[in-house]
Amino acid sequence: HENGVACKDPAAVVAEDFLFGGLDKPGGKTSKRFGFTANQVQIPGLNTLGESHVHLDVVPGGVFPVHYHPRAAETALVLEGSVYFGFVSSYPDNKLYAKVLRKGDVFAVPQGLVHFLYNNGTAPATLYASLSSQNPGLVLLGNSLFAGALPDDLVAKTLLTDAHTVQTIKANFRRS
Amino acid sequence: HENGVACKDPAAVVAEDFLFGGLDKPGGKTSKRFGFTANQVQIPGLNTLGESHVHLDVVPGGVFPVHYHPRAAETALVLEGSVYFGFVSSYPDNKLYAKVLRKGDVFAVPQGLVHFLYNNGTAPATLYASLSSQNPGLVLLGNSLFAGALPDDLVAKTLLTDAHTVQTIKANFRRS
Amino acid sequence: HENGVACKDPAAVVAEDFLFGGLDKPGGKTSKRFGFTANQVQIPGLNTLGESHVHLDVVPGGVFPVHYHPRAAETALVLEGSVYFGFVSSYPDNKLYAKVLRKGDVFAVPQGLVHFLYNNGTAPATLYASLSSQNPGLVLLGNSLFAGALPDDLVAKTLLTDAHTVQTIKANFRRS
Amino acid sequence: HENGVACKDPAAVVAEDFLFGGLDKPGGKTSKRFGFTANQVQIPGLNTLGESHVHLDVVPGGVFPVHYHPRAAETALVLEGSVYFGFVSSYPDNKLYAKVLRKGDVFAVPQGLVHFLYNNGTAPATLYASLSSQNPGLVLLGNSLFAGALPDDLVAKTLLTDAHTVQTIKANFRRS
Amino acid sequence: HENGVACKDPAAVVAEDFLFGGLDKPGGKTSKRFGFTANQVQIPGLNTLGESHVHLDVVPGGVFPVHYHPRAAETALVLEGSVYFGFVSSYPDNKLYAKVLRKGDVFAVPQGLVHFLYNNGTAPATLYASLSSQNPGLVLLGNSLFAGALPDDLVAKTLLTDAHTVQTIKANFRRS
Amino acid sequence: HENGVACKDPAAVVAEDFLFGGLDKPGGKTSKRFGFTANQVQIPGLNTLGESHVHLDVVPGGVFPVHYHPRAAETALVLEGSVYFGFVSSYPDNKLYAKVLRKGDVFAVPQGLVHFLYNNGTAPATLYASLSSQNPGLVLLGNSLFAGALPDDLVAKTLLTDAHTVQTIKANFRRS
Repeated sequence: HENGVACKDPAAVVAEDFLFGGLDKPGGKTSKRFGFTANQVQIPGLNTLGESHVHLDVVPGGVFPVHYHPRAAETALVLEGSVYFGFVSSYPDNKLYAKVLRKGDVFAVPQGLVHFLYNNGTAPATLYASLSSQNPGLVLLGNSLFAGALPDDLVAKTLLTDAHTVQTIKANFRRS
Repeated sequence: HENGVACKDPAAVVAEDFLFGGLDKPGGKTSKRFGFTANQVQIPGLNTLGESHVHLDVVPGGVFPVHYHPRAAETALVLEGSVYFGFVSSYPDNKLYAKVLRKGDVFAVPQGLVHFLYNNGTAPATLYASLSSQNPGLVLLGNSLFAGALPDDLVAKTLLTDAHTVQTIKANFRRS
Repeated sequence: HENGVACKDPAAVVAEDFLFGGLDKPGGKTSKRFGFTANQVQIPGLNTLGESHVHLDVVPGGVFPVHYHPRAAETALVLEGSVYFGFVSSYPDNKLYAKVLRKGDVFAVPQGLVHFLYNNGTAPATLYASLSSQNPGLVLLGNSLFAGALPDDLVAKTLLTDAHTVQTIKANFRRS
Repeated sequence: HENGVACKDPAAVVAEDFLFGGLDKPGGKTSKRFGFTANQVQIPGLNTLGESHVHLDVVPGGVFPVHYHPRAAETALVLEGSVYFGFVSSYPDNKLYAKVLRKGDVFAVPQGLVHFLYNNGTAPATLYASLSSQNPGLVLLGNSLFAGALPDDLVAKTLLTDAHTVQTIKANFRRS
Repeated sequence: HENGVACKDPAAVVAEDFLFGGLDKPGGKTSKRFGFTANQVQIPGLNTLGESHVHLDVVPGGVFPVHYHPRAAETALVLEGSVYFGFVSSYPDNKLYAKVLRKGDVFAVPQGLVHFLYNNGTAPATLYASLSSQNPGLVLLGNSLFAGALPDDLVAKTLLTDAHTVQTIKANFRRS
Repeated sequence: HENGVACKDPAAVVAEDFLFGGLDKPGGKTSKRFGFTANQVQIPGLNTLGESHVHLDVVPGGVFPVHYHPRAAETALVLEGSVYFGFVSSYPDNKLYAKVLRKGDVFAVPQGLVHFLYNNGTAPATLYASLSSQNPGLVLLGNSLFAGALPDDLVAKTLLTDAHTVQTIKANFRRS
């Protein structure tokens, strides 16, 4: 056992334990709401290597909405299409570092910072993201604020808005 | 030099380099908007020890709004008063773990997760928070979304709302 | 399993797993010999967070005698009363860094160095110590030298004294 | 300064510091001898992120010859074409883990192990490799044995061959 | 369990768990082919200490052939005799750092670099090597290239030689 | 600069930067008081390798008195002679793990624990100790308690003795 995953008998390890295939075609979990499909690379032999990878497809007009990884930095390569990609620095600056990325561009996001991408073109976009942890975690800012059980008045105070606006947005998150 | 901070000549080091005083009285930076005062413990001798500490005062009705630390876990002790304190787990669960804490209670927040506290009592509350990094960083979810330069339509898509609502909230963040 | 502790089924995790209460009142293990009560904060959800915390009460005239933590640095906050607190640097300097600390003072001890505190006032003193490891360990110099099975002549040579003095002190440690 | 690289004044940091472009076209250093072109991604903002990336083009019949990275694990994604890719386990097994990879396949190499790739197809192949260190290092087994100043008899004993064979191969490495 | 090794009940731990004896006499695994005997120090109590040690005897004319440790730096002390000891830096320099070491000399090899030793004297040589990992691993360059299943043409391309030479050397590695 | 030590221009690095010689003869700092000579291996090229080494000579009747390393575990090899070597576990057990070691024996001390060695034979003893940090530090329990400026009453309370005994021992430490 390492990191909670049972280790295979070394004599039974085969090359397939180090392989993950099919990233040339969209696959994995699709979010109709946001317009993306994310396919996390699962390589049994990668346990303890301290990295993970995600293949991402975003339809025109789709976003990977504002989010962060609590335990990882990220480096993303655009494989196809074009995206507006960026991150926001910490409080108190909240400075935006963003670029339109095209095929062959790589962009880096420091550990734990809020980032996003946005397909504002007319063709599907595909990215390959490398994360500096086997277990990077994912927090979507919208879902964290509106899809869980945070009290309405706390969310209203956090966003300098009123409870009615919070309830309206929460209702949108409840719709599938 | 260690971690970008010039190291003192060892022969010139004195006991005061390991001391930070006055945490029994409110001090540090005050947020009138949210109703808290945060005093970050600055101990020159702490450089390379891998921890930092914050003393926090929250007026009745005040909040430390929803936020996270990109590079640290946190453990908070209530010194005076009472607060509603909690954190939200990662996507897709967004589960709320929260408690009303009273004097003498300690509550822990895992690395990088979204958390908050809320003084819903009638007396001032005081906390002492320990962070597992010298340079934990701070991201306030509201400021990150509305006080920087994130495009309105991206924030609207992230929060499943419309650009008008985003602009109204942004105006609130622009008011001092 | 992580760090030898069985991990809870994530679905069964509740807010209480991140809470430790009652630090506003003395509690935990009391040393009548030295005049202190130490209460180690035990938070199940803290496993893997890389920190631990101790609440300490010291009666007037009481000491937390000279000791160190083999696997941690420490930062202590005085909650009530006043203590003389310090640490000793490594060989060959053996330099004392010490201060009388009052309510609201924070003092830091680098990784593994010998330290102590002493309540030389007339009121009880209370401290909250943060340690930079889940499993910091504790070595009391007196107990290490005199309460275990170290040969008398070795202890005598270490302390530049004679076997009779060693045996007299050992007898004191044997008294409950 | 961090890791020997001067840190930029934070106020002068711009989005371009996190960007590296042009990986959709071959670029970087070409080895005519082996038939590959390697383009190491240089992102100033990546300093301290603990990763690096390489874009690799291999002509038909070209190899990235047997090599290892002294300070990194590797994960490679095939962007175009097809390669025979593999690694060899440690002594005494020297077991080969290898696969023909096609577009969209990802393959992982554990920390420090000997690996290679081979374009045995008829079209150019392109890969994107992620390395788990900012400064992974590269050792080519052939160059290490024959292009430096290792004594002939030591190389002969290491390879269970004779000094004449070693001298013949050394002469090949001296030819540009 | 720590690092895949079952931890002993602390109450059953004895001094022998921290002891490894007999390094004053040759012992362990002998390689007749290369003329050395290597005895890896196995101390149950060392689990989690992050080091390992090897005792090495080399007959006159023997070598510890060109090799590296994928997960460790090394520091070697000559206990008896004399050896020519060195390492090769990374590509593209492949620079040789080597010395004739005599009794009482210590030589260091950075993490993961190729190194070797050679007894070119007339007396047996004995060394004690410290490795900066519990599980350093060992890759012998000759065995990695010729004793496993690497394709002949790949090895030939890596070494700028022909398949016939590769097959001849492979045959030598197959002989016991 | 790495770890406060200026890095050499790589082009100027030579094999001597990785060598430390003369450990076959006593050398380094001698303690007449305790009867040992300690020679710390200083290898410029070892900077960042995370280890250090000490060569130790102990005359018959000499001790390396009770001490610990605040930032390292230790593994010691007996090169000549015989010593009684041991360590003491943490509070509250203070359990002794000790053995008479002879030439060729290796003994391990976990991170930060109190240990000692004692030459109770008639011949000089020589050891080679490996420490798991470049900067392990050294705390001699006797010197820490009696050679610095710790208040007499604190030392008396720590050792369950009286101020007179403390002053007597302090006087012994003041004698050269």
